Amino acid sequence: MTWLDLPPDSPFGTANLPYGVFSRGDDSPRVGVRVGDEVLDLSVVLDDPVFAEPALNLFMAEGRARWNSVRARIVELLTAEEHRAVVSPALHPLAEVRMRLPFLVGDYVDFYANEHHASNVGRIFRPEAEPLTPNWRHLPIGYHGRSGTVVVSGTPVVRPRGQRKPSGDAVPVFGPTRRLDIEAEVGFVIGTGSRLGEPVSTGEFADHVFGVCLVNDWSARDIQAWETVPLGPFLGKSFATSISPWVVPLEALEHARIEAPPRDPEPLPYLADTEKWGLDLALEVRINGHVVSRPPFSAMYWTPAQMLAHLTVNGASTRTGDLYASGTVSGPERGQRGCLLELSWGGKETITLPGGMSRTFLEDGDEVTITATAPGPGGTRIGFGEVTGRVRPALGRRSGRA
Amino acid sequence: MTWLDLPPDSPFGTANLPYGVFSRGDDSPRVGVRVGDEVLDLSVVLDDPVFAEPALNLFMAEGRARWNSVRARIVELLTAEEHRAVVSPALHPLAEVRMRLPFLVGDYVDFYANEHHASNVGRIFRPEAEPLTPNWRHLPIGYHGRSGTVVVSGTPVVRPRGQRKPSGDAVPVFGPTRRLDIEAEVGFVIGTGSRLGEPVSTGEFADHVFGVCLVNDWSARDIQAWETVPLGPFLGKSFATSISPWVVPLEALEHARIEAPPRDPEPLPYLADTEKWGLDLALEVRINGHVVSRPPFSAMYWTPAQMLAHLTVNGASTRTGDLYASGTVSGPERGQRGCLLELSWGGKETITLPGGMSRTFLEDGDEVTITATAPGPGGTRIGFGEVTGRVRPALGRRSGRA
Repeated sequence: MTWLDLPPDSPFGTANLPYGVFSRGDDSPRVGVRVGDEVLDLSVVLDDPVFAEPALNLFMAEGRARWNSVRARIVELLTAEEHRAVVSPALHPLAEVRMRLPFLVGDYVDFYANEHHASNVGRIFRPEAEPLTPNWRHLPIGYHGRSGTVVVSGTPVVRPRGQRKPSGDAVPVFGPTRRLDIEAEVGFVIGTGSRLGEPVSTGEFADHVFGVCLVNDWSARDIQAWETVPLGPFLGKSFATSISPWVVPLEALEHARIEAPPRDPEPLPYLADTEKWGLDLALEVRINGHVVSRPPFSAMYWTPAQMLAHLTVNGASTRTGDLYASGTVSGPERGQRGCLLELSWGGKETITLPGGMSRTFLEDGDEVTITATAPGPGGTRIGFGEVTGRVRPALGRRSGRA
Repeated sequence: MTWLDLPPDSPFGTANLPYGVFSRGDDSPRVGVRVGDEVLDLSVVLDDPVFAEPALNLFMAEGRARWNSVRARIVELLTAEEHRAVVSPALHPLAEVRMRLPFLVGDYVDFYANEHHASNVGRIFRPEAEPLTPNWRHLPIGYHGRSGTVVVSGTPVVRPRGQRKPSGDAVPVFGPTRRLDIEAEVGFVIGTGSRLGEPVSTGEFADHVFGVCLVNDWSARDIQAWETVPLGPFLGKSFATSISPWVVPLEALEHARIEAPPRDPEPLPYLADTEKWGLDLALEVRINGHVVSRPPFSAMYWTPAQMLAHLTVNGASTRTGDLYASGTVSGPERGQRGCLLELSWGGKETITLPGGMSRTFLEDGDEVTITATAPGPGGTRIGFGEVTGRVRPALGRRSGRA
């Protein structure tokens, strides 16, 4: 099917073709598409200046019809033998390029749309109460995060400092977080924005969302716990949010679409499922190379189409480059929990790693990697670029454990 | 002092000189400075392409030394008679220009740094509990808002729709908000950003903050109440945040600087006041032309320097164009409360307007205007451009009261 020397079961074959921004040596960043373990320089093979940009934004703003025609053209370039001579020199091994933040982030919204995660967090923090707040099954809970600290996979994460209040103490102390955590999430990138005052319906999801990436929403649980009442998470989250360098086009996820789970009570009409936008993505979370969790995105309560409809129902506009993430993806099993808060049950249970190591929360030097795959055509799998990051010690301190 | 025909007590004299972005007719937007009731086209009189930009961002990114030299040059142009012939044609009456959003907003953070406001809100919503949460006196509480819906003064505000749960009902209903409110706030605009992992100390405030604007953080109290637990305000705020078209340079507020109020307990060292950054700004809030409140910014508990130090203490970076607002400004007196939630005490008391009219929350057609002045040199006052907006009926509904 392609003149490339690509295994038929490659997770980055012609059924995937995720977009990213890369640079080689001192060259300026430009747009590429991943094919196997190579990146195709689109600024060379396609005649549109948007691919010479250092971000996907201008291309994403061109709209769904253009996304589809570009994708069809790339498939043609990679399959018709006649293009081989022109295309081959524009292919570069991933090992020889540096991946950049794929798009300029407009607003970043983080949802909380997974019932297992929200229930577990409720049980951990409020064991005496109902795990879910009364609003949870009526709307996708979300909040705005810091878009300026969204960083590309591979960016080191410095252990943040801040206020935390040790339980039993009367006053807070200042220092490095002792409860550095991850959140394995899936992110949705707005390609075509929407105007102020004009809600986006669930049926318009695919006209606005360009593609999907992986997100690690790093969290400092002790900073978050002290600051969060009454206005929600702030510094416990704003120090870094890592995303994968590759944005998988929505079109590549046709075979991953599934029915959303049954909801009770039935959501209000503006949240009704008009199309099937559950997604059967299989995530994996590794700490220092060891798999600690396999969160199933199929377990999400709210779909990304519902999240976008909710986000805009009050008339809020969206812009090219806006990013919204699902919130932590967890499944019903312990081995499917998408953050250490849940995996260690609030720090009470240790997570075993090979070599006699264990964790409750992250230690300096730990590397966390999230990957995912999705069903592709003919039993193949679509791969997501990994999102990875290593923890660096806090500024001016020997160690986050001090 | 100036060759301009300007009253000596003008709030927009040469001691002020706020920056904005304007357009005339079909001309492209460019940077101007307000002098009296005119705007001086800086793209004409200053030799720097940043002033031909449709936003202040490139100029703001040039840094504090450049801000000061440009300001000095503008004063020279407006005072030395020799420049009159060149400068005069570049002055345009405000009535003949259209003001635009003055800068591209990076991240928008809203604080909650006024003790009177936070205490009143606590008393209204949790009458049985301590008005302030335990963390309130230890850190400036804040959260991220939606930067994509920050709009310039004059932009109509469509009454948002959303979920609200009438008290006593088991399930939420969907419709236009019945509790549309304003929040009179002061906003601080980042000129020079800071890098990831590098906190900005309280003493570095003036190196980073370019200037100050007025903010109306429109709020739908019923939508906010239903969604806000556990992750904070979202759709109750994200539909619109209006800002004044003029950004007053920090330099113009030298005479407004005052000591911050005494704090108990003493803040942690990273929040220590190293310089005097309380600001004696006098705000006025009008509904349909009638003054309903005169909030004093001198009553703020936390200074803008402390807000920025807190915002970045976890290593979060800042960018040119980031905006952070103070939160509602209220004083100890009833006539100093900066939002209708407080003025109507949760909707229980009516606010009297002339002509036998009264309000608890806003009705369709209401126009809200916030203005402010600050002490200038020699007993004069520095003026802020007003931030105004009129409420339009909700989409697809007869009225927000339906």
